[in-house]
Amino acid sequence: MDLIDRLRQELGSDSVLEGEEVRQRGSGWGRPEPCGALALVRPRSTEEVSLVLRSCHEMRQPVVTHGGLTGLVGGAVAGEGELVLSLERLNRIEEVDAQGRTMTVQAGVTLQAVQEHAEAEGLLFALDLGARGSCTIGGNVATNAGGNHVIRYGMTRAQVLGLEAVLADGTVISDLGKMLKNNAGYDLKQLFIGSEGTLGVVTRIVLRLWPRPRSEATALVASASFGKVVELLAEAQRRLGSDLAAFEVMWPEFYDIVTTPPARNQRPLEHGHPIYALVEALGTSPDEDRARFEAFLGEAVEAGLVEDAAVATTPPERRALWALRDSVDQLARLGPIYTFDVSLPIATMESYVAEVRERLGREWSDPKCVVFGHLGDGNLHVIAGVGESGPAVRLRVEHAVYDPLRARAGSVSAEHGIGLEKRPWLSWSRGPDEIALMRRIKVALDPKGILNPGKVLPPE
Amino acid sequence: MDLIDRLRQELGSDSVLEGEEVRQRGSGWGRPEPCGALALVRPRSTEEVSLVLRSCHEMRQPVVTHGGLTGLVGGAVAGEGELVLSLERLNRIEEVDAQGRTMTVQAGVTLQAVQEHAEAEGLLFALDLGARGSCTIGGNVATNAGGNHVIRYGMTRAQVLGLEAVLADGTVISDLGKMLKNNAGYDLKQLFIGSEGTLGVVTRIVLRLWPRPRSEATALVASASFGKVVELLAEAQRRLGSDLAAFEVMWPEFYDIVTTPPARNQRPLEHGHPIYALVEALGTSPDEDRARFEAFLGEAVEAGLVEDAAVATTPPERRALWALRDSVDQLARLGPIYTFDVSLPIATMESYVAEVRERLGREWSDPKCVVFGHLGDGNLHVIAGVGESGPAVRLRVEHAVYDPLRARAGSVSAEHGIGLEKRPWLSWSRGPDEIALMRRIKVALDPKGILNPGKVLPPE
Repeated sequence: MDLIDRLRQELGSDSVLEGEEVRQRGSGWGRPEPCGALALVRPRSTEEVSLVLRSCHEMRQPVVTHGGLTGLVGGAVAGEGELVLSLERLNRIEEVDAQGRTMTVQAGVTLQAVQEHAEAEGLLFALDLGARGSCTIGGNVATNAGGNHVIRYGMTRAQVLGLEAVLADGTVISDLGKMLKNNAGYDLKQLFIGSEGTLGVVTRIVLRLWPRPRSEATALVASASFGKVVELLAEAQRRLGSDLAAFEVMWPEFYDIVTTPPARNQRPLEHGHPIYALVEALGTSPDEDRARFEAFLGEAVEAGLVEDAAVATTPPERRALWALRDSVDQLARLGPIYTFDVSLPIATMESYVAEVRERLGREWSDPKCVVFGHLGDGNLHVIAGVGESGPAVRLRVEHAVYDPLRARAGSVSAEHGIGLEKRPWLSWSRGPDEIALMRRIKVALDPKGILNPGKVLPPE
Repeated sequence: MDLIDRLRQELGSDSVLEGEEVRQRGSGWGRPEPCGALALVRPRSTEEVSLVLRSCHEMRQPVVTHGGLTGLVGGAVAGEGELVLSLERLNRIEEVDAQGRTMTVQAGVTLQAVQEHAEAEGLLFALDLGARGSCTIGGNVATNAGGNHVIRYGMTRAQVLGLEAVLADGTVISDLGKMLKNNAGYDLKQLFIGSEGTLGVVTRIVLRLWPRPRSEATALVASASFGKVVELLAEAQRRLGSDLAAFEVMWPEFYDIVTTPPARNQRPLEHGHPIYALVEALGTSPDEDRARFEAFLGEAVEAGLVEDAAVATTPPERRALWALRDSVDQLARLGPIYTFDVSLPIATMESYVAEVRERLGREWSDPKCVVFGHLGDGNLHVIAGVGESGPAVRLRVEHAVYDPLRARAGSVSAEHGIGLEKRPWLSWSRGPDEIALMRRIKVALDPKGILNPGKVLPPE
């Protein structure tokens, strides 16, 4: 019996899709091509995931796990002959422990559902990113997603207390403990967080919840130079401490495009400033926090760190400021673009951006280079548009963006992962011995190489 | 040529100790027996560590790495025929990046030296524990140490940005990046953090530093019941937010012994309360933070959560309150004692402590059971003295403390690790498939099993 028949028999025929139903699924955000997989299975439980993987392992069938398909590096692209394991039916929130502040969820729940469920309990799930409505928590864990509030709460890794994953051979590794501290042996969950489905399939997660902030203070500021914004960040950390929950920087090319029609955002500050930043503090004392935030801003203006500022005084105003940062879709107006996500020491950022621009300018006559990102986390997004596209152009643009990272000991992936697209660049940020050790771990956990083959690790 | 001669030739003879010089080293805190190792090597650099391990790997020589020898579970005990690899000469602080808030250190630097160096730069290294003067940062990393401020800053794992480790075969895995975010491939450093020297030898670390708090508010409180203390914790988290930096609970047996001569501490609150807690907030606004802290305490008194409180108003008063919590040495007055370190959901703690007492009381006529710990982290330390000792007694006490954890899905090790002593109990907190996967990783990284053999994983 072939694998598909066997899976149909074991899971029921509505759990196995083929042909047009698979192609319609698509390949993910920004990828026009249909899903190329052999078939798609939709298990209903961890046990069924285990069953699927055991069969695939036996028959050396490559498997690509699908969450919300919102990744940006091709980590979920399924090629011909590969089987898609969709976790769409593992979509239950199993338990909330409000006193212990934990939530136990299945991997296919969307990030937004997790957030809303926490909110309904008077708590906060701290991970937040633009794709919240579509991305799944399993995908967030598999890619160690970052997002808007990392400076305050950490990345996805910091939100995971317990985790259940299925290994390539179907073994279920279940560590659904709710403890903040657990040094009983190796911390196996760390292996699966951020390994992009290549070491195991995450099926259930115990998430850490936080007390809900009782105050929000948000401002958009403009500064006279990148150096001033860096000083402002240091001052914000000194003055606002861990209330500082976002510090998003935008170079003027970004600010201009998201505040110019057809973008429908307001323009809270004039164009023409050298740099902008969105600053947010989340606190616990509504009465005092706003005064403290405004005092901080006032002193920053006096010290020359801030030229102009727009402070949100109502929730709609706050949402309008965040809408600027979230209007990434406006960048499609630049024509064909390439999106990058790098991290590097803050002290090296200004020269880095200058060098990328200079390299692009050397090769193209009017390149667009739009930069924004999570300054507090050392993470920049670089969008490059050079008026043409295709593999050869892409390679040249990648060199312009990645080569200047090497001297600065930066990373080619701050939060998006490696997937398919960044594999050729992994060695820009990792040495040969590190990559060899990654391979050793991959072989130990997935000896037949059936899990998301060809992702993360470059071909040998 | 035998291994010792070879090492002497390669490193110089003052780098290799034998005989009495080794025995004098001792076996660690609370262990009267001399160090039983064959020899002790003291490499001066990562390259020399690599050289030692390469030779040991070739000759299948078991190696036990030594830091400050302050562990509590026998993780550094070196038996006959084993070689001690002491990192005492890797004791340099290599660099501080004050703007990026990182410190690059060698593994043999003491925790206190790291703390003081950060302080001199106007910054904070957030890990803190009683053994600070002797323990090394390499040991803290290898055991994922916890300590007093985990509730605010996380465990050692959260303080590590980059890490260099040497594998069993001498390969140097060097990831000394300073980035908060780096999703370029598997996060290999997570493997070495908390694996107690069984997967590699940590040689250098890039540590995360924090802005130094500008205000401290500390109080000792007494409450009418454990339930009230739990409510107080929730209220503290809601009111003080992430300023809450410590929430240490002490059952009366602990408070009484550390405030009764010969203990030289003051007695800030009367004996006779059902439970005590040490609460500390670290903030950024000296003027407002104290008022907020006192308002929080005042409301807690009014709400009946707190019966009596002593607030520190000067640094010496603050130190005096912490001295109570740190007077763990007073527990030696109980006679022969066994020390435990468990974690479990807060909601199950009260019944857990009752069950442990009940079990001890069933077997011994006047057992001592002293409980204290990091309530905010779900972590309790249990000290049991039953008037007798020896392996059979120890086993019975261990059953009394560990058995009640199983129904509560707790961990036999919150922060002390597994080492030698907790190996038989690992399966109380980890399933057979988890332990099998730990073994798989151990074999992948240390195929000849030379690194800290017999630690962490129970014999097969």
